[in-house]
Amino acid sequence: MAQKELLVSNVDKEMKIALEKYEEPKDIKRVLSGMRPTGKIHLGNYFGALKTWIELQDKAECFFFIADWHAITTSYEDTSKLSQNTLEMMADWIAAGLDPEKSVLFIQSQVKEHAELHLLLSMITPVKWLERNPTYKEMMENLKDRDLATYGFLGYPVLQTADIIIYKADTVPVGIDQLPHLELSRDITRRFNRFFGNIFPEPRPYLSEAPKLPGLDGRKMSKSYGNCIYLSDTEEELRKKVMSMVTDPARVRKTDPGHPEVCSVFSYHKIFTDKKQVKEIEENCRKGQIGCVQCKKQLFENLNTFLSPIREKREKLLSDKETLSQIFVEGSKKAREIAKETMEEVRKAMNFFTF
Amino acid sequence: MAQKELLVSNVDKEMKIALEKYEEPKDIKRVLSGMRPTGKIHLGNYFGALKTWIELQDKAECFFFIADWHAITTSYEDTSKLSQNTLEMMADWIAAGLDPEKSVLFIQSQVKEHAELHLLLSMITPVKWLERNPTYKEMMENLKDRDLATYGFLGYPVLQTADIIIYKADTVPVGIDQLPHLELSRDITRRFNRFFGNIFPEPRPYLSEAPKLPGLDGRKMSKSYGNCIYLSDTEEELRKKVMSMVTDPARVRKTDPGHPEVCSVFSYHKIFTDKKQVKEIEENCRKGQIGCVQCKKQLFENLNTFLSPIREKREKLLSDKETLSQIFVEGSKKAREIAKETMEEVRKAMNFFTF
Repeated sequence: MAQKELLVSNVDKEMKIALEKYEEPKDIKRVLSGMRPTGKIHLGNYFGALKTWIELQDKAECFFFIADWHAITTSYEDTSKLSQNTLEMMADWIAAGLDPEKSVLFIQSQVKEHAELHLLLSMITPVKWLERNPTYKEMMENLKDRDLATYGFLGYPVLQTADIIIYKADTVPVGIDQLPHLELSRDITRRFNRFFGNIFPEPRPYLSEAPKLPGLDGRKMSKSYGNCIYLSDTEEELRKKVMSMVTDPARVRKTDPGHPEVCSVFSYHKIFTDKKQVKEIEENCRKGQIGCVQCKKQLFENLNTFLSPIREKREKLLSDKETLSQIFVEGSKKAREIAKETMEEVRKAMNFFTF
Repeated sequence: MAQKELLVSNVDKEMKIALEKYEEPKDIKRVLSGMRPTGKIHLGNYFGALKTWIELQDKAECFFFIADWHAITTSYEDTSKLSQNTLEMMADWIAAGLDPEKSVLFIQSQVKEHAELHLLLSMITPVKWLERNPTYKEMMENLKDRDLATYGFLGYPVLQTADIIIYKADTVPVGIDQLPHLELSRDITRRFNRFFGNIFPEPRPYLSEAPKLPGLDGRKMSKSYGNCIYLSDTEEELRKKVMSMVTDPARVRKTDPGHPEVCSVFSYHKIFTDKKQVKEIEENCRKGQIGCVQCKKQLFENLNTFLSPIREKREKLLSDKETLSQIFVEGSKKAREIAKETMEEVRKAMNFFTF
């Protein structure tokens, strides 16, 4: 237990260091980010990442990829849903607002050059750097059967580095927990440049202010808790979920004064409901003049207004899988062209025999 | 020091286990092996590996590759000679008797699919398996600066496994010291098959009886000792090297009785000189009736007879680099076709989204 605490404090330390170093990147030229296709996208994913990506589309050249190789790092025994999850993610992304006219949308495993650069970077990355990675340390601590810690999991910051620098991206939108990984990517990039010449820019993190959106039960929204609202939820599913949301536990009767600051429903209102209405709800709740049922119905309406067009677009996209796939075929082709150019440069710098 | 002994005894244990399991493979169908392009080929390399490969060409379908990615695992800071070394190896191989009409001769880095399979295998390979690898343990023990142990070096048995199984090779000619690595490859292969279906045959090792050929100074022939005879040595270089060879240290004068069993020159005679002559030399040496100078001159003649045609062919090959390269372009193309087929099977088995 003492060791566990030690580990956690170490993790915090890495995070603190990374946070202290953080500076909002200026002059963003090329953005890259990816998402593991582990299932349908929920509102937590949307506000945690996708919303920032959609905004960045108008500010820089953007590359977004479905990280299907990364998806295997944590669930290698069962990959039966990988293909379906990839397809759903394609639909989720575009329905939510990623625009193939603005961004290069592609699939990681369609660009083999990532694997090649990953292999080359692996040759210069000290094992110790990877063992220091907070996520790895945490996993090692939590796993009873240490054999589950795979070589691929240990090395996923190396693959992540390859993913980023192969496009010479200068900026990577990440969550706070990803800061130490990006710091490691910068270290690996610097080491490569030192040995083989200044080929890659050091990627900078871009932290977005994501509003905190709890799951239906008030905990963090997470697939494994079964407390998510998905972009794909039908109107009926959405209604049921909203009506089942946890509110202020101290409020038993409608006439009891409520505490919006601890109520999940209220934190949703702050995002999906217009300011005037939010103010009314807050006042009425505190006075015990609006019941949770009515409050939830209002939220449902507003949430449904937000999700309806996404849901409809999503259904339309999935009704023509051919066209949907084609978007990612085109995107992967564009990505590959750039990745190939970079790899030619890398092979030359490393003195590989070329024909 | 106690720990060092413990480590060495562990290494021996792994080796012993692997040796006990060893059975000469029967019914060899497809052979694969590779060599790291770290410099010109010397007689130690020739008798340790190349000779076996040349013999196997007439017995099975053979794939031999120049392991340029593997070459970086141990000398990543300086890759300035990589391209030249690759070219020299191409010439050495064909001059010595590898025949592109019989075998597929290719360059590892030309078949990106190796990197892709390496990445996928990395996801299922426990770190612990790799840490147990005797070569890795030995390196960790010998290195003063542990930071030199890279992720790529830790994982090179994973890349080696990908190299082999991507061609579904059933047999791999190896030296005894490589037995534990191949055992590890078999373990990784079994694990993959267990998760994703029986795609790969388990590769079997093929041990050849390599004659022991010492370096000029009597130690193991090794580039780092500077005691090698290269296939590329000129007649003059060869003469000088043979005349400088260490003989029986107890023999000071020509008339002193010699001990051929401890003489490096004599162990060469056993390979390069006809049996009748070897018997004469042995008898005359023991009686003090033949001097070392004369004995070496005889060896030089016989060794030169062996090396002359190789040397000439080598020079001819290197005088037309275009044609030489073309052989490996063709070979890499053939290899890639098979590797691509395998990877399609793998991607399907692992449920990657395919267009």
